[in-house]
Amino acid sequence: MKISYQEVSKHNTREDCYVILYNKVYDMSEFIPHHPGGPQIIVKYAGKDATAVFDPVHAPGTIEKHLPKEKFIGELDLDTVPQEVRDAANAAQKEEEDRRKNIPPLSGCLNLFDLELVGSRVLSNMAWAYYSSAADDMATYNENRDVFRRIWFRPRILRNVKNIDLSTRILGHHTTLPIYITATALGRLGHPDGEMNLTKAAAREGITQMVPTLASCSAEEIAGARDENGAPTQFFQLYVNSDRRVAEEMIHNAEKLGFKGIFVTVDAPQLGRRERDMRTHFEDSGSDVQKKSGEDVQRDEGAARAISSFIDPSLDWNDIVWMKSVTRLPIILKGVQCWEDAVMAAEFGLAGVVLSNHGGRQLDFARSSVEILAETVDALKERGLFPRPGFEIFVDGGFRRGTDVLKAIAMGATAVGIGRPFLYAYSAYGPDGVVHALRLLRAEMEMNMRLIGAPTLKDLVPEMVDLKALHHRGSGAPTSDDTTVFNPKGSKI
Amino acid sequence: MKISYQEVSKHNTREDCYVILYNKVYDMSEFIPHHPGGPQIIVKYAGKDATAVFDPVHAPGTIEKHLPKEKFIGELDLDTVPQEVRDAANAAQKEEEDRRKNIPPLSGCLNLFDLELVGSRVLSNMAWAYYSSAADDMATYNENRDVFRRIWFRPRILRNVKNIDLSTRILGHHTTLPIYITATALGRLGHPDGEMNLTKAAAREGITQMVPTLASCSAEEIAGARDENGAPTQFFQLYVNSDRRVAEEMIHNAEKLGFKGIFVTVDAPQLGRRERDMRTHFEDSGSDVQKKSGEDVQRDEGAARAISSFIDPSLDWNDIVWMKSVTRLPIILKGVQCWEDAVMAAEFGLAGVVLSNHGGRQLDFARSSVEILAETVDALKERGLFPRPGFEIFVDGGFRRGTDVLKAIAMGATAVGIGRPFLYAYSAYGPDGVVHALRLLRAEMEMNMRLIGAPTLKDLVPEMVDLKALHHRGSGAPTSDDTTVFNPKGSKI
Amino acid sequence: MKISYQEVSKHNTREDCYVILYNKVYDMSEFIPHHPGGPQIIVKYAGKDATAVFDPVHAPGTIEKHLPKEKFIGELDLDTVPQEVRDAANAAQKEEEDRRKNIPPLSGCLNLFDLELVGSRVLSNMAWAYYSSAADDMATYNENRDVFRRIWFRPRILRNVKNIDLSTRILGHHTTLPIYITATALGRLGHPDGEMNLTKAAAREGITQMVPTLASCSAEEIAGARDENGAPTQFFQLYVNSDRRVAEEMIHNAEKLGFKGIFVTVDAPQLGRRERDMRTHFEDSGSDVQKKSGEDVQRDEGAARAISSFIDPSLDWNDIVWMKSVTRLPIILKGVQCWEDAVMAAEFGLAGVVLSNHGGRQLDFARSSVEILAETVDALKERGLFPRPGFEIFVDGGFRRGTDVLKAIAMGATAVGIGRPFLYAYSAYGPDGVVHALRLLRAEMEMNMRLIGAPTLKDLVPEMVDLKALHHRGSGAPTSDDTTVFNPKGSKI
Amino acid sequence: MKISYQEVSKHNTREDCYVILYNKVYDMSEFIPHHPGGPQIIVKYAGKDATAVFDPVHAPGTIEKHLPKEKFIGELDLDTVPQEVRDAANAAQKEEEDRRKNIPPLSGCLNLFDLELVGSRVLSNMAWAYYSSAADDMATYNENRDVFRRIWFRPRILRNVKNIDLSTRILGHHTTLPIYITATALGRLGHPDGEMNLTKAAAREGITQMVPTLASCSAEEIAGARDENGAPTQFFQLYVNSDRRVAEEMIHNAEKLGFKGIFVTVDAPQLGRRERDMRTHFEDSGSDVQKKSGEDVQRDEGAARAISSFIDPSLDWNDIVWMKSVTRLPIILKGVQCWEDAVMAAEFGLAGVVLSNHGGRQLDFARSSVEILAETVDALKERGLFPRPGFEIFVDGGFRRGTDVLKAIAMGATAVGIGRPFLYAYSAYGPDGVVHALRLLRAEMEMNMRLIGAPTLKDLVPEMVDLKALHHRGSGAPTSDDTTVFNPKGSKI
Repeated sequence: MKISYQEVSKHNTREDCYVILYNKVYDMSEFIPHHPGGPQIIVKYAGKDATAVFDPVHAPGTIEKHLPKEKFIGELDLDTVPQEVRDAANAAQKEEEDRRKNIPPLSGCLNLFDLELVGSRVLSNMAWAYYSSAADDMATYNENRDVFRRIWFRPRILRNVKNIDLSTRILGHHTTLPIYITATALGRLGHPDGEMNLTKAAAREGITQMVPTLASCSAEEIAGARDENGAPTQFFQLYVNSDRRVAEEMIHNAEKLGFKGIFVTVDAPQLGRRERDMRTHFEDSGSDVQKKSGEDVQRDEGAARAISSFIDPSLDWNDIVWMKSVTRLPIILKGVQCWEDAVMAAEFGLAGVVLSNHGGRQLDFARSSVEILAETVDALKERGLFPRPGFEIFVDGGFRRGTDVLKAIAMGATAVGIGRPFLYAYSAYGPDGVVHALRLLRAEMEMNMRLIGAPTLKDLVPEMVDLKALHHRGSGAPTSDDTTVFNPKGSKI
Repeated sequence: MKISYQEVSKHNTREDCYVILYNKVYDMSEFIPHHPGGPQIIVKYAGKDATAVFDPVHAPGTIEKHLPKEKFIGELDLDTVPQEVRDAANAAQKEEEDRRKNIPPLSGCLNLFDLELVGSRVLSNMAWAYYSSAADDMATYNENRDVFRRIWFRPRILRNVKNIDLSTRILGHHTTLPIYITATALGRLGHPDGEMNLTKAAAREGITQMVPTLASCSAEEIAGARDENGAPTQFFQLYVNSDRRVAEEMIHNAEKLGFKGIFVTVDAPQLGRRERDMRTHFEDSGSDVQKKSGEDVQRDEGAARAISSFIDPSLDWNDIVWMKSVTRLPIILKGVQCWEDAVMAAEFGLAGVVLSNHGGRQLDFARSSVEILAETVDALKERGLFPRPGFEIFVDGGFRRGTDVLKAIAMGATAVGIGRPFLYAYSAYGPDGVVHALRLLRAEMEMNMRLIGAPTLKDLVPEMVDLKALHHRGSGAPTSDDTTVFNPKGSKI
Repeated sequence: MKISYQEVSKHNTREDCYVILYNKVYDMSEFIPHHPGGPQIIVKYAGKDATAVFDPVHAPGTIEKHLPKEKFIGELDLDTVPQEVRDAANAAQKEEEDRRKNIPPLSGCLNLFDLELVGSRVLSNMAWAYYSSAADDMATYNENRDVFRRIWFRPRILRNVKNIDLSTRILGHHTTLPIYITATALGRLGHPDGEMNLTKAAAREGITQMVPTLASCSAEEIAGARDENGAPTQFFQLYVNSDRRVAEEMIHNAEKLGFKGIFVTVDAPQLGRRERDMRTHFEDSGSDVQKKSGEDVQRDEGAARAISSFIDPSLDWNDIVWMKSVTRLPIILKGVQCWEDAVMAAEFGLAGVVLSNHGGRQLDFARSSVEILAETVDALKERGLFPRPGFEIFVDGGFRRGTDVLKAIAMGATAVGIGRPFLYAYSAYGPDGVVHALRLLRAEMEMNMRLIGAPTLKDLVPEMVDLKALHHRGSGAPTSDDTTVFNPKGSKI
Repeated sequence: MKISYQEVSKHNTREDCYVILYNKVYDMSEFIPHHPGGPQIIVKYAGKDATAVFDPVHAPGTIEKHLPKEKFIGELDLDTVPQEVRDAANAAQKEEEDRRKNIPPLSGCLNLFDLELVGSRVLSNMAWAYYSSAADDMATYNENRDVFRRIWFRPRILRNVKNIDLSTRILGHHTTLPIYITATALGRLGHPDGEMNLTKAAAREGITQMVPTLASCSAEEIAGARDENGAPTQFFQLYVNSDRRVAEEMIHNAEKLGFKGIFVTVDAPQLGRRERDMRTHFEDSGSDVQKKSGEDVQRDEGAARAISSFIDPSLDWNDIVWMKSVTRLPIILKGVQCWEDAVMAAEFGLAGVVLSNHGGRQLDFARSSVEILAETVDALKERGLFPRPGFEIFVDGGFRRGTDVLKAIAMGATAVGIGRPFLYAYSAYGPDGVVHALRLLRAEMEMNMRLIGAPTLKDLVPEMVDLKALHHRGSGAPTSDDTTVFNPKGSKI
């Protein structure tokens, strides 16, 4: 027998809490304290339909995995949904459609900044806040762009640059560009196909994809989106679970799904406080003037907090030893931030490191990856560890222009990870947007290789970049992020 | 017999001056020239009620201490107060209430900047001007923030950061955070309970408080606000009086009240010219087009000047020797600004120094405390004076983020003093605001210790900060403080 | 028999395409795929009159050179042109006239920035976009100006500066100023006489002119605009054609026309992506929402792309050897960007180099010419190659003030090339504008030579410039170019 | 017999030119080509009354000195002046009065920037343009302020600073402050008493005054404004006339008038092109659309040009030798800009140098005086020339704050020259304004000496300033001076 909307509405307290998801009714009362995203968001939807907020942040199968079968109460009787509830749902959908109505033709986007601009208009407030937010005062977020303004070129002339070859190998796998799609969470906030958009584009353009632990598609879905030839090459980004059995299971699953390497995130023992994200969340959960002071500082830390409570902050080098023992896949540390740890990784026999500050989302005033790259290559060279087959250096954070990528390659990186721009691209245009972004990068890089005088990536040598100003940090003005306590929603770009 | 308002009104000249305070009538005629805040402000209220301006800047007992008993004329006959005077008083109160009406819920404040913003809206023009103002062009005030943009982190990975311990000891006393509430004057400008708000919050959060000489609560009141366990630990900030007997009495009183150390302010032989503060004051005392030129440059130097005329500019190292002879409390110099003086302090056997520029309120173009910290630690190390038990280095000025504090600790500081943000917090929200501010800092620091790879404060080592850009001062644009001769009130933030 | 407009209108498809040019009708159907500027622009005008867009970007004789005679269909019957077509043409002309109506008197222009401002108002959107645009984020474009803010003077006093002599020799040819008019393309976008305006002004002011390969006047026209004495001295800027016979023919033609040197452009194996230019072009070719993604990234790269498809990206040092064998004219490399290549040029026995980043139009984050100059002079001196008769160093990019020129001369340059400002000047005022610009520069330089204490260019020595801040790049904020995907036309200055 | 206005009006051409000055009629026809300020301005007033523009820029006696007696035609018949001429004169006077109506009370001005702001509102467009303008893009003008943001203090504590002594000696003459009033031209543009305002204020405050060659009061008037005790000490600033007999006469006149030293300006062989000044002038002389291009670039170079045509650009060190032979007054070079010339001055036995860039009005990108001071003191010390009795170093340019002055003194300067601020002060408030400005500086300096720990100027030692960032020029953004060809009048601050 179907359950009426009116019946659901009666179970509207923390103690007695029904929630509608995908037209099914569940009893959440006992689950509430165990929700990784905190109890409050569930209580807010007690007696109501939570599908719209649940859907984009949970992978398929989440309900089945966490709720005992007996908590499924029954199907919702759609005929009983009141008109005002239908109207509200329709209004929300209309607002979404309106945002999408006036986007410019894809070919009008001439660079990745255009795609970001379009993305910011297309995304909902919550999605924009989650994707674009960064730590504290966004000093690192801004530095990730600013640093490229401090690296200049020393081009060579009169070299035959008729044919430009941008291809290389990442961990032994061919790629048409020294660029890979890096792992980012909650891909369905921007588009119903989520991370699968990236898989399709990567296949079409011949580049590799790093599959995130916190994807909102399942790893199986993302692997399943490969084309008939099994393209693209995929790696797996791993947040190590406090329960090592779960972690091991994830690693073996990654092997089974054909992923070619494990990128262990080591810069996020706890996910960051990103205030733009928190403010949106705060807004959503309503005002609480009566609330006692201080007691809930960590309560509402936005989407980031909601999805990350299982990450193990006690992870250390011993775990890496253990991890090597349970898989033959190459292991790469993602989030190395000083040369000392890169040297240790090389000495531990790992396959490489990703120099990264997590897109400026974790520690504010972490340095940019290319600044770390400079000291790391020096330190490795001094110790005879660079260049060395079997140990590769990747970088990510703030790469938007073909020139940004070429600078990192010339300085010694094997490849560059790019994340947010592809999210913005598919949020607005689906996989075509990501393909377009990659072709823009390819066009820029091809031209700039010509202008620098380097027909292949091997010809990009350190002497081609002028690093005199590399360390001149701090001249950038602080971000004028207009989200404050008086304007929690802020404004988009 | 009660005195009528009309009778008071007749005594309205400098020579014959009655003033109403707390519904009592006093004859101020003979006291006028001795008023530390200058004669003008009293003359302005001759024949009128001065309670509203008197109250927030004078500690209880001030009248009794300075006015002979016979100057008390009698109680005011309240029935004789004219309606327009009542109306004006009501209007002032209404304006105050209006300012407080629209403050956001405390939990919406996500960082100390939010609290400052709320504070700026809640405070009166005069209070905001006094609290927020700084010297000259506010170069030092701005540098106190800017310097943190020039210090970056070098985080370590794969360290077990499950448990973070932020506790330490200040002069041997336990604190849950390497942060103390530093001394600031005129606490009742923002809230009727003044400095006692800080005492209550410090007790709740387990940190220490420095009690100011220029508090608008008495030292007895502030000590009395400790909780049943005698928390928090309190230190006493001392402005040394020209009359050394008064100074000695203050020291002994501090001992009696259970304060655990004497922080002697050495950077303020004269209190600063703070133009925003002066402009508000100027506005208050009315236009004086007819006034002769030049003669009154120093006349109206705002609240700062009003409260500081007794400070002795002839204080020198001999006085420090004397001070050591009259107390067993540890003596710390507050306001050291170069390594040479820090070395002298250590050689004089003092318990420590506070590297400080007085919040940018004294000498403009004084350097930031963390820049001084770098040279001081180097100089002390060279002389075998650091680290050394019994000599501690504190810093203050511009600390707003957890990362700011961690930078200073990594560079060698024992603890960090914070002042203004707590004033703004309690001006808007009382002690709960201060507790909230401390919990925000605690949350930021806990997360960032994890991200840096340091489970305890001892693990924060100098190698974790990159100081390459530390001395790149001066790139910041000048403050666009819009208080000028044409707009003396300026605007709040 | 004349062709009616209605007849032309019928041939309006890619397969059957008539176009009217200068009241003549041509059949373009077979030519379309061979159009260097791409097919799309021709298709857009299928069946219509394309004279207005054709004229300013094609040198005389272009039609004859590329279209077989039989493709000329006949004269247009003017009487058949419909009224609305006439009206549209008239409206376009009126808009042009309106732009020109309010320009200020020439003598009101006090510096080259004034001329640029006037130019931006006088030029059409397309012309402004083509002339003013630069690569990517315009970092190099801005740096070309910013660098001069980092070079300061060390003037000497009490030297007799009554008579100032600004004359010098370029490749042995006398010039009244150490300034030459450098090569820029598409001169008729701004004025019907195109590059001939520059010839006339150069003659009047006694300076030299570099004649561009991509001029919209023919080399013959430009040479023909010399005055009765054969002034000015002219050089030829050469883009080397993929077909070396064409290149050789161009060199011999340059000799025949009396040009005195060959400046081979070596920094443009492919012409740059200039987004402002591309956006205007995009706008022109209409929206294409239906277009498939990605496939046309390189399709519409603006005017730059349209005119450059013949440039050979395989040019190398061997070609330079060949070139020396086919001409006795001095050969200079234009676009050298590091000392290594300048040293090679000297060792190859060339007559000099132009240190240049192509006005910021090619590789973004190429360094400024004066920064390259500093390292180049040092490297040449170390090798005994500087100063050396027969090898001269030129610089261009961003020179707008007399002081800019003097800085470069003091650092070791023989002369300075200036381009865009003269385009703006003649677009608004014809040759008089260019003469005015040169007189402004002359007046500034004369005065500043006096103030520096150098009566002749030889007295401008390296000790007169302070280069301590030369390499402090990157402090400048990014350009706020408001052309974006949502505002393709942007705004003028 | 008196001359009627109508009669004057008939002589209104360049060839037949009558002009009314102070109600007297003169025949200017023959004088026009000899006018140092150029012919145009006279022609503009042919047949009219030029008193209003003549008066503030000519010292008394100018007419008598330059016009033969027979050119005086007669007194103007005041009854014949038409009503519309009277109306226009009245309107001009009313506009002047309106500007002055709303100035704030002097005591509301808290610093020298306030005085500048008031000055900008009180002055006419032309006067403001002349006083405030600087060379080219005003890079040096801005640097003169910016440099002080790069010099920071290292204060000492616990020194007895009860009594502060700011007095010193300049060339042996006592002064109460290490500040002197430097020479500036055309003092009557801002106030009818011109430079005499400065004399009165200097006497009242016990400082010295440098009397300018280009004063609009005569040297006799300025000397005559000294008080009964002969205060203040006065020096003479000398522009050396091309005719050395005139120069010698000026020197002897200076001796006769009791001036105590000769400051020979050596940084101005030609007066600068100051565009703000030129634009105002351009506006005044009307539009000239018909004018031929280029021919008049140097025609209208504003007030600066008008008054300086006699300055000799051939002045050299031999002239200094000659000058020493004709006077016993100490000779100081004003406008030295590198250590080499300061060393030469010392070796020539001169009494000192003024390190100066002429307030940013001459060579743009000349360095700031304090930056030159640093290298000069080092170079002199190396050669045993510093400190040395009888050779003093002065600096000027951009000094506005007490801290600015203290920085220069600590670095080795004897005293600091200040110019523009005093002009603004007396333009608005007469001598009282200048006294007020000096008292503001005195108050700031007294307080800051206390805060730095230096009771006398001798205690200000080099160790008290931190010069690490001294040479970090160029980070300042360009001036947003909104005077352009489209807005010649610009706007005031």
